[in-house]
Amino acid sequence: MPVSPNATAEITAFNWVPPFAHGLVRDLRVRWACEEIGLPYRVRLLDARLPKPAGYVKEQPFEQVPSFRDGALQLFESGAILLHLGENDERLLPRDPLARSRATAWLISALNSVEPAVQNLASIDLFHSGEEWARLRRPGAVEFVQQKLSRVSAWLGEREWLEDRFTVGDLMMVTVLRNLRHTDLLAGFPNLVALQNRAESRPAFQAALAAQIADFEG
Amino acid sequence: MPVSPNATAEITAFNWVPPFAHGLVRDLRVRWACEEIGLPYRVRLLDARLPKPAGYVKEQPFEQVPSFRDGALQLFESGAILLHLGENDERLLPRDPLARSRATAWLISALNSVEPAVQNLASIDLFHSGEEWARLRRPGAVEFVQQKLSRVSAWLGEREWLEDRFTVGDLMMVTVLRNLRHTDLLAGFPNLVALQNRAESRPAFQAALAAQIADFEG
Repeated sequence: MPVSPNATAEITAFNWVPPFAHGLVRDLRVRWACEEIGLPYRVRLLDARLPKPAGYVKEQPFEQVPSFRDGALQLFESGAILLHLGENDERLLPRDPLARSRATAWLISALNSVEPAVQNLASIDLFHSGEEWARLRRPGAVEFVQQKLSRVSAWLGEREWLEDRFTVGDLMMVTVLRNLRHTDLLAGFPNLVALQNRAESRPAFQAALAAQIADFEG
Repeated sequence: MPVSPNATAEITAFNWVPPFAHGLVRDLRVRWACEEIGLPYRVRLLDARLPKPAGYVKEQPFEQVPSFRDGALQLFESGAILLHLGENDERLLPRDPLARSRATAWLISALNSVEPAVQNLASIDLFHSGEEWARLRRPGAVEFVQQKLSRVSAWLGEREWLEDRFTVGDLMMVTVLRNLRHTDLLAGFPNLVALQNRAESRPAFQAALAAQIADFEG
């Protein structure tokens, strides 16, 4: 069981978020990676409703979660944490330099080519839905998401994973796609639905999701 | 001179973009990194006004620039290309695992914590300025950029670079900040202006910028 109070690796997470964010907070990515490789981690819970503890900004300059520490390493950005874990375990990131670079490209494309479009739509729908600009902008935001999804879908084709095997690139991409769950946009791309289902059926994902949910109060 | 027709490393770039994008297209990041380490590269120019050549989508799934190839490696996403170059040259990415992870965190925070806010504002101003939603949304978009800038500025403090020395994290962050040049937002954060000036005064940046501009027609 990776969640262990005595683990040297520590991540930060929230003890509460609104229901729409359950299973979407980004510590899920790190928990999932730890579960994939059986790396024990402990959790330091923060309250999303309160100002962050003094000093947290030194750990995480944007005061978000997760931050990660293990011994002398203090790290932020879920993408960087996944790459760090992958450097130390080929189950997350292949040792072969070419395959490693390709996996890194997918991790970064999830964060920079796909997530901005997805988060823009999620922000419109979840935080600004009553506002006039959001009503006017939504069709364009949907189209932008669909354009990005069509690119990933076209690449994926009949593949099982984005490259030859599961890597942190798939892990990251699937956690990004999950932010569309309040829409039916993914259904237009059956191979992306299949990718998400394939990834989410992994025991490591299931354990990570359960652990995140268990840390939310009531 | 890193630009060399016989180089084994090849990047793609555009032979034309609108003036507002001169010096902002993302091949600049890769050119800059190559200049920092004296790595020769050749350029394959694409026409931004035409559909991409058949087959380009296999190189770059989102049909953007830059893509990168060197021998058997075919890579996309400027962030992944910078990390690849950094893996092979400590002038871009420290060898020490802790320092390397920290540099990676800044590269990714530039791409995922800062750039989405910056690009959202740039999109409003450069592509949608006449639209009603853009007028209504702009104040919120500005505030979001300022919030991100204030975080980076607070971290940077009196430091010269984001960590102990120049890395691809600084390179990436500065290329993101450059996308605010049509605004006066950066002026509110003098240490970020200084960071940008410090980075842009590097001979490698100057050479990369000149090479990008030289590839635009007329």
